[in-house]
Amino acid sequence: MGKNALVGQSGGPTSVINASLYGVIKEAWAQEGIDKVYGMVHGITGLIEDDLVDLNLFKDENGAPTEDFELLKHTPAAYLGSCRHKLKDHSQMDIIFKQLEKYNIGYFFYIGGNDSMDTVNQLGKEAIARGLDIKMIGVPKTIDNDLAITDHTPGFGSAAKYVAASTREVMLDAEAYSKPQVTIAEIMGRHAGWLTAAAALAMEGKDSRGMMIYLPEVVFDMPQFCIEVTKRLETNPKLFIAVSEGLRFADGRFVCEGEAEAEKDSFGHATLSGCVKEMAHALRQVTKVKIRQVEFSTLQRSAAHCRSLTDMNESIMAGEAAVRAAIAGETQKMVCFVREAGDTYSISTQTADASQICNVEKTFPLEWITPDHFVTQDFFDYAKPLINGEPAMTYKDGLPQYVELKR
Amino acid sequence: MGKNALVGQSGGPTSVINASLYGVIKEAWAQEGIDKVYGMVHGITGLIEDDLVDLNLFKDENGAPTEDFELLKHTPAAYLGSCRHKLKDHSQMDIIFKQLEKYNIGYFFYIGGNDSMDTVNQLGKEAIARGLDIKMIGVPKTIDNDLAITDHTPGFGSAAKYVAASTREVMLDAEAYSKPQVTIAEIMGRHAGWLTAAAALAMEGKDSRGMMIYLPEVVFDMPQFCIEVTKRLETNPKLFIAVSEGLRFADGRFVCEGEAEAEKDSFGHATLSGCVKEMAHALRQVTKVKIRQVEFSTLQRSAAHCRSLTDMNESIMAGEAAVRAAIAGETQKMVCFVREAGDTYSISTQTADASQICNVEKTFPLEWITPDHFVTQDFFDYAKPLINGEPAMTYKDGLPQYVELKR
Repeated sequence: MGKNALVGQSGGPTSVINASLYGVIKEAWAQEGIDKVYGMVHGITGLIEDDLVDLNLFKDENGAPTEDFELLKHTPAAYLGSCRHKLKDHSQMDIIFKQLEKYNIGYFFYIGGNDSMDTVNQLGKEAIARGLDIKMIGVPKTIDNDLAITDHTPGFGSAAKYVAASTREVMLDAEAYSKPQVTIAEIMGRHAGWLTAAAALAMEGKDSRGMMIYLPEVVFDMPQFCIEVTKRLETNPKLFIAVSEGLRFADGRFVCEGEAEAEKDSFGHATLSGCVKEMAHALRQVTKVKIRQVEFSTLQRSAAHCRSLTDMNESIMAGEAAVRAAIAGETQKMVCFVREAGDTYSISTQTADASQICNVEKTFPLEWITPDHFVTQDFFDYAKPLINGEPAMTYKDGLPQYVELKR
Repeated sequence: MGKNALVGQSGGPTSVINASLYGVIKEAWAQEGIDKVYGMVHGITGLIEDDLVDLNLFKDENGAPTEDFELLKHTPAAYLGSCRHKLKDHSQMDIIFKQLEKYNIGYFFYIGGNDSMDTVNQLGKEAIARGLDIKMIGVPKTIDNDLAITDHTPGFGSAAKYVAASTREVMLDAEAYSKPQVTIAEIMGRHAGWLTAAAALAMEGKDSRGMMIYLPEVVFDMPQFCIEVTKRLETNPKLFIAVSEGLRFADGRFVCEGEAEAEKDSFGHATLSGCVKEMAHALRQVTKVKIRQVEFSTLQRSAAHCRSLTDMNESIMAGEAAVRAAIAGETQKMVCFVREAGDTYSISTQTADASQICNVEKTFPLEWITPDHFVTQDFFDYAKPLINGEPAMTYKDGLPQYVELKR
């Protein structure tokens, strides 16, 4: 009898993190070396608190995958539940490895971002130190696209598609009126501007001077911003400004810190929001033009109704590749995408040390930012293939159908 | 040689107002009694300022509809541009009727809401007073669903679908974490709660106590709200609160008036936003539960990527019916939908006096609101057919394709 596999999800949800879960489960079921597949409820905390589910719940009495299993790959957020849990001390390691032993786990898969890869790295190291044969593999996931080594991350393409499509629609809405109007949209991205830059994709075939992009990779200066915008309004009275939530002043303060309610998650990261409010307030001192604030909210990471088919398929592929890597004997690794050379977009997977991924943030290339606050063609070439295609969703009574974990 | 037709769009954009434009143009082209079809750029102001376009721009050299014409029915916002213009005095009437004579207009179509029907009514009356044979017909349009007599309005179904689908996705995002969380979403609707109520559609098959709905039809009381929410959190730690932007206190003040930046449009209506901020602030005084604010912004009226096929088809139908009514000799009317009796949803069109529509607001039925801040089955029966079906959109490089007026 083979070992069992364990899979969990961690960090912020995306609209395709469940597609990776689908990929892990499907490939694990197909592997003779793997017996059962368990899911951790709310990530590593589910393991610590003994809250696991047997993912055979996605099989019918004949062992065939259920309809719910197909819905899983279309369901946004984290089916198993997520967490933001930092491994604290050695007493937690003891509990974790006791649990892994209890469930006869030989393969551990963790779908997440930087912090989750830190977990994969620590657990993998600990397993080796304890002389245990448990393979620990990370599956990349983040709308922020800030993981090192991999060409891009599952989750980014769909979020980018949502941001670009929504930007296009919000711009059309503004263009309906004859009066000048500035729209400032706040887009997720704490330290990396990839997703904010995706707003540029809405400008394909249009005059890019109708958009200004402010990324966290560049120090923000409010007086300079006001000058730039009022100047741009002279030639472009309908202006869309895409702003990263993580914009900072030269002294390191977040632009949104005028907003008092900044919360911190358990990794100590500030929960940001509100820099558009500060920027709109400053602009109103220098222009009478109507200013509209837009926040794409959590929809930018959970709007499964506007996903990229490419992203969904690659997310499944990443999950499957993780299982094959573990079976091949790899551990302490994360699955990475490699973009093949040539005119036609295609990717393959490989693995990289989780230690090289965790606690590194891949920021937006400065050379892809133009002096007039737009992005170069390099970004279009990079990002366009990632938002391509639309998955065939199942609708019922006009709404997309999703599956939820029933306890 | 026949008379010409003139069509314009007015008021807030919707994701299907161009489908009605498509219907007007298509049917007008098909009518032998109509020669050319002109469009007013930015509504009635385009007529006053002599800014018209010949809509033969949607025909190729052989007189066949172009591909752009098909894209028109999928394009959100207002292709011709919109306006919020109140007819001021008789001097404007003289200009308008001089313009109508100049372009040999026999048929005038105006796609809009309450205020637009006021324009239709005034112009129709004036035409008769001047002894002119110009038929004036209104085509209903508003996401607010607040027009009298008609069963519902084009634009509502798609906005309702967007709100329900997005609510579902935002709720799944919140459910990914183990901690309690309140999400407060602000939804458009100045005096009528129809669109806010549409959030309820996301609860189909779920425990409705996970949602609380606050509509402008009911006086809002902040201390009472805080009590109700903290009590509900005891049984439902993941709570979604859907809030109309137009909530008011007993003294008539808007809840959002704590926000200083309330602007007014040229009809004197306040531009509302920010009541979720006031409500979140009040809640934070009484609970430590994480509170997330969501504003669906202008996407709720312009997200063509998440439209209702039923709504799109009915919007086209309303445009076509307006032309047929005008040809049949009607004037000063608005097209209305009548829901046929029987188990299967179907509608037909008729007309009603524009004077009976303008300046009347059809609010949400009080008897459809439950004491525990949800809606009755009546609303589900009413609204579910309206969000049904998904139009086949044209995507290019991962983004929906739309058409814009080029000048």
